[in-house]
Amino acid sequence: MPKRKIAVVVTARPSYSRIKTVLSAIQEHPDLELQLVVAASALLDRYGSAVNYIEKDGFIITAKVFNVLEGENLTAAAKTTGIGILELSTVFDNLKPDIVITVADRFETMATAIAASYMNIPLAHIQGGEVTGNIDEKVRHAITKLADYHFVASESAQERVIKLGEDSKMVFNTGCPSIDLALEIRNSKTLPFDPYEKYGGVGAKPDLSNGYLVVMQHPVTTEYKDSRKHVEATLEAIYKLNKPTLWFWPNVDAGADGTSTGIRAFREQHNLPNVHFFKNMEGKDFLQLLKHSECLIGNSSVGIRECAYLGVPVVNIGSRQNRRDRGGNSVDVDYSQKEIEEAITAIVKNDKIVSSSIYGDGKAGIKIAELLAEVPLQFHKTIMY
Amino acid sequence: MPKRKIAVVVTARPSYSRIKTVLSAIQEHPDLELQLVVAASALLDRYGSAVNYIEKDGFIITAKVFNVLEGENLTAAAKTTGIGILELSTVFDNLKPDIVITVADRFETMATAIAASYMNIPLAHIQGGEVTGNIDEKVRHAITKLADYHFVASESAQERVIKLGEDSKMVFNTGCPSIDLALEIRNSKTLPFDPYEKYGGVGAKPDLSNGYLVVMQHPVTTEYKDSRKHVEATLEAIYKLNKPTLWFWPNVDAGADGTSTGIRAFREQHNLPNVHFFKNMEGKDFLQLLKHSECLIGNSSVGIRECAYLGVPVVNIGSRQNRRDRGGNSVDVDYSQKEIEEAITAIVKNDKIVSSSIYGDGKAGIKIAELLAEVPLQFHKTIMY
Amino acid sequence: MPKRKIAVVVTARPSYSRIKTVLSAIQEHPDLELQLVVAASALLDRYGSAVNYIEKDGFIITAKVFNVLEGENLTAAAKTTGIGILELSTVFDNLKPDIVITVADRFETMATAIAASYMNIPLAHIQGGEVTGNIDEKVRHAITKLADYHFVASESAQERVIKLGEDSKMVFNTGCPSIDLALEIRNSKTLPFDPYEKYGGVGAKPDLSNGYLVVMQHPVTTEYKDSRKHVEATLEAIYKLNKPTLWFWPNVDAGADGTSTGIRAFREQHNLPNVHFFKNMEGKDFLQLLKHSECLIGNSSVGIRECAYLGVPVVNIGSRQNRRDRGGNSVDVDYSQKEIEEAITAIVKNDKIVSSSIYGDGKAGIKIAELLAEVPLQFHKTIMY
Amino acid sequence: MPKRKIAVVVTARPSYSRIKTVLSAIQEHPDLELQLVVAASALLDRYGSAVNYIEKDGFIITAKVFNVLEGENLTAAAKTTGIGILELSTVFDNLKPDIVITVADRFETMATAIAASYMNIPLAHIQGGEVTGNIDEKVRHAITKLADYHFVASESAQERVIKLGEDSKMVFNTGCPSIDLALEIRNSKTLPFDPYEKYGGVGAKPDLSNGYLVVMQHPVTTEYKDSRKHVEATLEAIYKLNKPTLWFWPNVDAGADGTSTGIRAFREQHNLPNVHFFKNMEGKDFLQLLKHSECLIGNSSVGIRECAYLGVPVVNIGSRQNRRDRGGNSVDVDYSQKEIEEAITAIVKNDKIVSSSIYGDGKAGIKIAELLAEVPLQFHKTIMY
Repeated sequence: MPKRKIAVVVTARPSYSRIKTVLSAIQEHPDLELQLVVAASALLDRYGSAVNYIEKDGFIITAKVFNVLEGENLTAAAKTTGIGILELSTVFDNLKPDIVITVADRFETMATAIAASYMNIPLAHIQGGEVTGNIDEKVRHAITKLADYHFVASESAQERVIKLGEDSKMVFNTGCPSIDLALEIRNSKTLPFDPYEKYGGVGAKPDLSNGYLVVMQHPVTTEYKDSRKHVEATLEAIYKLNKPTLWFWPNVDAGADGTSTGIRAFREQHNLPNVHFFKNMEGKDFLQLLKHSECLIGNSSVGIRECAYLGVPVVNIGSRQNRRDRGGNSVDVDYSQKEIEEAITAIVKNDKIVSSSIYGDGKAGIKIAELLAEVPLQFHKTIMY
Repeated sequence: MPKRKIAVVVTARPSYSRIKTVLSAIQEHPDLELQLVVAASALLDRYGSAVNYIEKDGFIITAKVFNVLEGENLTAAAKTTGIGILELSTVFDNLKPDIVITVADRFETMATAIAASYMNIPLAHIQGGEVTGNIDEKVRHAITKLADYHFVASESAQERVIKLGEDSKMVFNTGCPSIDLALEIRNSKTLPFDPYEKYGGVGAKPDLSNGYLVVMQHPVTTEYKDSRKHVEATLEAIYKLNKPTLWFWPNVDAGADGTSTGIRAFREQHNLPNVHFFKNMEGKDFLQLLKHSECLIGNSSVGIRECAYLGVPVVNIGSRQNRRDRGGNSVDVDYSQKEIEEAITAIVKNDKIVSSSIYGDGKAGIKIAELLAEVPLQFHKTIMY
Repeated sequence: MPKRKIAVVVTARPSYSRIKTVLSAIQEHPDLELQLVVAASALLDRYGSAVNYIEKDGFIITAKVFNVLEGENLTAAAKTTGIGILELSTVFDNLKPDIVITVADRFETMATAIAASYMNIPLAHIQGGEVTGNIDEKVRHAITKLADYHFVASESAQERVIKLGEDSKMVFNTGCPSIDLALEIRNSKTLPFDPYEKYGGVGAKPDLSNGYLVVMQHPVTTEYKDSRKHVEATLEAIYKLNKPTLWFWPNVDAGADGTSTGIRAFREQHNLPNVHFFKNMEGKDFLQLLKHSECLIGNSSVGIRECAYLGVPVVNIGSRQNRRDRGGNSVDVDYSQKEIEEAITAIVKNDKIVSSSIYGDGKAGIKIAELLAEVPLQFHKTIMY
Repeated sequence: MPKRKIAVVVTARPSYSRIKTVLSAIQEHPDLELQLVVAASALLDRYGSAVNYIEKDGFIITAKVFNVLEGENLTAAAKTTGIGILELSTVFDNLKPDIVITVADRFETMATAIAASYMNIPLAHIQGGEVTGNIDEKVRHAITKLADYHFVASESAQERVIKLGEDSKMVFNTGCPSIDLALEIRNSKTLPFDPYEKYGGVGAKPDLSNGYLVVMQHPVTTEYKDSRKHVEATLEAIYKLNKPTLWFWPNVDAGADGTSTGIRAFREQHNLPNVHFFKNMEGKDFLQLLKHSECLIGNSSVGIRECAYLGVPVVNIGSRQNRRDRGGNSVDVDYSQKEIEEAITAIVKNDKIVSSSIYGDGKAGIKIAELLAEVPLQFHKTIMY
């Protein structure tokens, strides 16, 4: 029997980190062949060149597709998706995959979903069924309605996908593959690398040995024009606290420039003797950094997932993760300098934060690969009610 | 207060017929301004040039977008959608509509839905929530998850959209606008035009005064390669019955050429002294033709909707309308010459078939226009569970 | 030393016929590796599915790109080219060819030329420098200005490319590769196959043993709306002559439907007891058919090139080949039934028509492959005056 | 008689500056109607948002087209052009212009040229026939072969376009419209505005009253990877000279990030107490700035054209302007810190530099508008030899 060809389209740095263990598990599975397509911001310097990490990690890239349209408005996001469909159709037509995998809910993942489902290629969706209260919900649930297999990350996500009318036999709670990496470093005692040396970056180089904060804040698509104001609240809070802080640039989004501009302008106007800025970091190193930090600040889903598993305190800002399941390690605050500052101060003192396996047990990659080898190949479905 | 700008994207002849009364109602509403975009197969000769009817009906076309990629496979459907997104984004960016309307479930309507929702333009979907058991379900329900307002055609559709997690306050059972046209001709006593003279077409010109059949059979996307076999069963049944028959060419779809080739080949090999072929017909004239026919044969949704309202018998073939609500006027058969033939014979004798208002009371257009003028302008939603 | 990777983009049936011997010669050359990309109408049934012949001839297709936009106007030609650039860029980015080859002057060959030259990939152009007096001149000469190597088909073409400011060291008169096939069948004594049996087609099956005509007439892009009228003049002449005639459908172009519609309509209105219609034919078989015919009628460049080499009489209609070098085997007429009819009658009696090697000696393929292996790899040029 | 509709596609900040007087002249001409399309980098913040200046100058924008594909390689330039064709075709199909104008030789201007010429819309090219010895020559001369009217900027350009086989009756030496703006400020005695106050920017604010340098250096497409090294030579020369200097960021190009990164890195490593950086400046203000400067350094065509007319000394670096006509105000140097430094020192002392009208007399805009109103509308041409 020929191996099943599994095409995975990676479109962004954080998506790659999230599903790296799925890629490895597919590659190692005797009945599966990996067709890795790298596209969109995963190819771009400005957004951390995930492609370099992918190659360094030893994956063979089957095709690259540049499809990010440049622009400071939402039109560019729509057009990026359109170009993605146009080109991924050609890629799939040439690769003839048995199953296509699309990851999560970034706007451009819709391109993968539409190309595959319109071409009658069975489509698997990783991380459907979650709720955030944001624009990415439209994308996420629409992809659920296009997908044939659902590899969800939590029980509540599983229930929600079934409520959406999907066949429960095709909805699998595998846990989130991002937890797989966290499993490996869960027992780390000290930070095993010097982040300044290994990742460069710019700004001050505060001493990290007595604790440090990590910040990662993305623009929120539907509140496009406010991106700059949002990041300024965080910048001011960090400025006031003046603790050793490692700040990560946001990845691409329609409002990216609002956030980035806000950071750049603040840096030019203020002295930040305790803040270092990184563009990006390999997934496992980033988890190590979080594991040994006092607190993560921002709106990254890493705070909700991996940090829950690792038991790292999180100050979660704004609406981006609004209705996602929480593991008890985080506190939610508004875009307010005062709220952010106070929440950080409180949470770093809180010694009750423990690990939670709400997003899985660290074996999602292997589970997903096994399912991919076994599920019936089908692209025809009907709503269950 | 400035008028609300309502952009409607018409992508196919049948879609135009279906929402013509919505267009009129928008145009006549004092608080609304119609921005009519004509795209995809609605611009093409091969598929009946809906654009000509639109202009003849007096609508002003704001923009035209050619985006149908040619091809004999499903790749073309995907690429058509990608190009549609790319170009409709530019159109919307220039027109700045307050609300965008997308109609039903043809594959390329997804382009309208994605362009609008990604650009944070409130999106209204007409005819969501229905069930057919086919590939168009993926499209239809995915659009529901992208749309902000739902103008559904029946009670069961309304319930289904709400079950899909939509806010019930934004789900309106307006009835299907296609019924609006049927309302106008419901009491017609005789066919008010000579179809041969008015619409040309090719083939025999059977006498219609003692009853006639109408055939309209579209390819079924997920069963692409079988399209030809499917249409041949119908062709053979009609050939055997040898009754006066008016046959309509299918509109565009990935498998269109399968069906069309089947018809062409059959015509070359058989003498069909009682069959006339039409490419297309204005919506209201088509309803008149159905109203005075003995039976509609095929898989068009017109059989399920308008014919239910008009009380016209229908032999519905195959899976295309599988789980749509029925009004009691139709019988379902497989792609089998024998079944089709017997069902036609039986149903033309059946005198129990009466009108049903399951798909509305013929005032959907006006209701929709009123709602468009009143609904809150919003593009931010979250799933209700 | 690694082999030079030579990407050839084939976009249409006639282009494939024309450069088939180049493909073989590249494939057989020890220092070259062929990367064959099949795109545009070469993939479509409606235009003769060159792709099937390519595969049957044993070539491995590296990538397929569907990019023909459907439409009855010139907008579609422009958009097809745009999509071609978008997708071929991705193809080249993934294949990393050392040289890209584009063929002749069809509108969509510009896509190949732009993608390659913008990506700094050395570009070779086959068949530049010719003059026709038509819209394809804009394309042909513009490609000359983008190309780095010129493999031209005649002395006058060579002179013209040099006059256009190209470096004479990079302009090679290899002869036209289409002549290579003609060389192989030059001495054929009888038609070695039954065209009806081998290629099907529709219409009458006249006896070919006492001579026959061949017709191949393409629409002329800049005279789009007149395409139908043009073909009707030819149809009427052939109808009047009533000699055994083999008629070939035109390949894709913005006006294709004008020509095709004209033929279809004429067939429905007239009895053509001596005319058979073919969709397409393998290159070598087509040359055999011409070799044994009395005369070729139409506006195909085959009449100007291969027929010159084979010494077959040609009635060349209209402006399409206007200023191309002639070998003495053809007579030019207008789109006039009378002129066409008289010219055919006269030329089939003319026994002075002999072979000419104005378009080469039948070894273009091998010469081109050798040059591809030797030319310096460069993409930087400046006009010579 | 209806006005002739003239569509002008502006794709970049420098192009807008260059043809602003053409736009005004078209707008004011009684027989012409301006259809202004703004596309590509002209819409983007990163490249100086020409669109804002266009609106501020009172022009009505008929359509906007976002088509810049993001990427750090040449693939993006090709794809940007492909998307441009796809979308401009739709724009032209809806606007139905009588003549389309494309400007100069930036890669994406090819999109305008192809869309128009393929759609049989007469195409006018401004600034053809020049020679630079760079990749933009391919673009420029290819556009000449697609264009129907040529509005060239100098006598030698006129001769060259005619040598390229164009009909001399359609080649008009109007002079360069960029000189029109220079005409207006030719007699300015002092800088009429404070550049720091009016345009912000970053860096030191050196006193300009005793003379200052202006730097504008763009990446050179074919030498993509060297962009950074190139700009570093200039940075070091300026650093050594330590004179008041106003430095302008480069506009978009495949290598833009090489140049920009070079500048950013240099700024972080060196103290530049005499250098101020601007992102962009209104055309006329920029000319004022040049008029009162001691010298322009870099590779901008402004140095070759406007500075020749204004008699401003120029140190022209590298190959970008290689074979353009010179007016006697410039000296050419290599990418060498030493050469640049010495050339600046020598040229600011040179008092022999005078004004030259080699690029026109400042009335190009009006001449072009008059020609647009008078030329025969035609899109059919043939090479003259």
